Amino acid sequence: MKNFDINEDPHRRFNPLLNEWVLVSPHRSKRPWQGQNESIPTDALPAYDPTCYLCPGNVRANGVNNPDYESSFVFENDFAAMKQDEIMFEDTIKDTFFRAKPERGISRVVCFSPKHNLTLPEMDLPSIENIIKTWQKEYTDLGNVDYINHVQIFENKGSVMGCSNPHPHGQIWAQSSLPTQVEKTQSSMKTYFKNHGNSLLQDYVQEELELNERIVIENSHFVALVPFWAIWPYETMIVSKRNATKITDFTADEVADFALTLKQLTTKYDNLFETSFPYSSGIHQSPTDGELHPEWHFHMHFYPPLLRSATVKKFMVGYEMMGESQRDITPEKSAAVLKGLSNVHYKST
Amino acid sequence: MKNFDINEDPHRRFNPLLNEWVLVSPHRSKRPWQGQNESIPTDALPAYDPTCYLCPGNVRANGVNNPDYESSFVFENDFAAMKQDEIMFEDTIKDTFFRAKPERGISRVVCFSPKHNLTLPEMDLPSIENIIKTWQKEYTDLGNVDYINHVQIFENKGSVMGCSNPHPHGQIWAQSSLPTQVEKTQSSMKTYFKNHGNSLLQDYVQEELELNERIVIENSHFVALVPFWAIWPYETMIVSKRNATKITDFTADEVADFALTLKQLTTKYDNLFETSFPYSSGIHQSPTDGELHPEWHFHMHFYPPLLRSATVKKFMVGYEMMGESQRDITPEKSAAVLKGLSNVHYKST
Ligand SMILES: O=P(O)(O)O[C@H]1O[C@H](CO)[C@@H](O)[C@H](O)[C@H]1O
Ligand SMILES: O=P(O)(O)O[C@H]1O[C@H](CO)[C@@H](O)[C@H](O)[C@H]1O
Repeated sequence: MKNFDINEDPHRRFNPLLNEWVLVSPHRSKRPWQGQNESIPTDALPAYDPTCYLCPGNVRANGVNNPDYESSFVFENDFAAMKQDEIMFEDTIKDTFFRAKPERGISRVVCFSPKHNLTLPEMDLPSIENIIKTWQKEYTDLGNVDYINHVQIFENKGSVMGCSNPHPHGQIWAQSSLPTQVEKTQSSMKTYFKNHGNSLLQDYVQEELELNERIVIENSHFVALVPFWAIWPYETMIVSKRNATKITDFTADEVADFALTLKQLTTKYDNLFETSFPYSSGIHQSPTDGELHPEWHFHMHFYPPLLRSATVKKFMVGYEMMGESQRDITPEKSAAVLKGLSNVHYKST
Repeated sequence: MKNFDINEDPHRRFNPLLNEWVLVSPHRSKRPWQGQNESIPTDALPAYDPTCYLCPGNVRANGVNNPDYESSFVFENDFAAMKQDEIMFEDTIKDTFFRAKPERGISRVVCFSPKHNLTLPEMDLPSIENIIKTWQKEYTDLGNVDYINHVQIFENKGSVMGCSNPHPHGQIWAQSSLPTQVEKTQSSMKTYFKNHGNSLLQDYVQEELELNERIVIENSHFVALVPFWAIWPYETMIVSKRNATKITDFTADEVADFALTLKQLTTKYDNLFETSFPYSSGIHQSPTDGELHPEWHFHMHFYPPLLRSATVKKFMVGYEMMGESQRDITPEKSAAVLKGLSNVHYKST
């Protein structure tokens, strides 16, 4: 019987944030690709597109004109998934199979730049800091709305991630309930904090720094790493070194380091396959429910689908949907690849 | 304040199988589409493709020749995600962040037909019954392997679902652990069974039949419905009316009704957008761990991504990945649309 070799043998790994297992099949990265190829838009984009509803001065679907904004710009989503109206409702908790309850929320769009063709890695550091400050302001403002208990900041980048417009932008969906994934994460964090008196990610990052096998970027205040339990081929997580529970905890130095980490990570991503790298990213942090949440620890997930080139992505389908998430290349290998890539954007060389 | 209207107001619904909430935004189905369009292959396929590694008589990547099979045909996956080798391993359960353990398994490919261009809805009922009998045999044979405790039968159909070959086929991944989604489902079913003495799906289907709002197909032994908590636009579930815990429990009559349900459901799917409808499907049933599982109840999930046409799919991205699954069109509306579609395939009229 052979000894377990985590770099070669199929195995499962445990995700302590979501409290679930994932399947890793390192030997499978050798199989030939026979699936669909994505078509990646390669046309050079103009800095201003008269048909783009996010460019400064243009008209949106609801007839409103965008201002001539010069840095970031925030507006209410014209096709929000939630509405602000208060709804009368009697709870049907006794009903096992047909439980439903109204959900109030506010959705906003955050334009990262007036320039239609500028993505995060190509922006300068002050502009990225400005986006972070916009997120801080929105987290505060939305969190202060009495019925808003959670503020989800996220970005879908690239048409393969369902992004309807290449103009650099993210979204914020703020709502009264904790969404399912956040609820699970919070529950794991609470249990850990109760048992150890530290935040789960505080201790995890400490151990990762010592092992130094999955670290992609490290600076004074932040770490970007491939989690031990990552499911997407080049999934990463940016974590604050300090136990900051939310984005508004950051000092000026921390904001600067966060901006630098964002720029370096997204630059490495673009350099990986020399393409504008698609992903969904999102920040997980303390709810805005008025409670203290010492168990929370600020982190930002990046879930990029590309697997082996600009046009070949990983599909999370049949087995993954019915069984559990599955990956081929190991997190250690992905981390080594990303770490080795330049911090200078391929387009600028 | 207005009264809650489940057909109009944003709300969350509870999934009692996975024990989690999903977001429903009925008003949002009106928003204009601005996202990516899928390219759907429309070329007519030949009945035999000399380059297809699944067609009878052809050579596979590992050099083996397929037999000249005449109905269904099963072989071991040449690029399996799990391996059969026994691996020596010491549990590191005390380790919080770096838990990993080897996983043994067997992966098989099930060709549904020798014909390269024949999909489920276009096959005759005896051929579909034959596929069901093949699944029964595989469930039994694989389940009898001492270290196999779970047999996941599934199909990825269509390039948009990562399916690498249009030749009609499904897969089976059998393994020693219960995969994450199955573990969650089993846990909900166990709790329900303990509290009610019936299987969860037995009581659910009973209530659905009385309400008759989400039923798509009903015959003597099976129901196909859009679950109250469905996340994909046209997601459905086939459930046995009787509390069968596994596919090998079915009588000859039940096999015939299951085949009929499969044919009618996939025909309706194809008719919806007059295209070969992509989906991932998979059977959830009793584990093969040697225990009695009275809580289990045979069901088959269909997760199709198409939203509003043959080329526009729903993206489960940013908010869905960080927060929770979200849908626009209500399950009731989807069920009504599917129910209203013909059981005669559009190509044959
Ligand atoms: O085995 P296939 O068809 O090549 O691969 C497909 O199904 C597998 C099981 O759902 C997935 O892991 C792959 O990502 C997908 O491309
Ligand atoms: O709001 P958008 O960019 O039009 O829509 C995109 O992001 C949303 C939030 O993740 C998803 O619900 C949609 O499926 C996706 O297409």
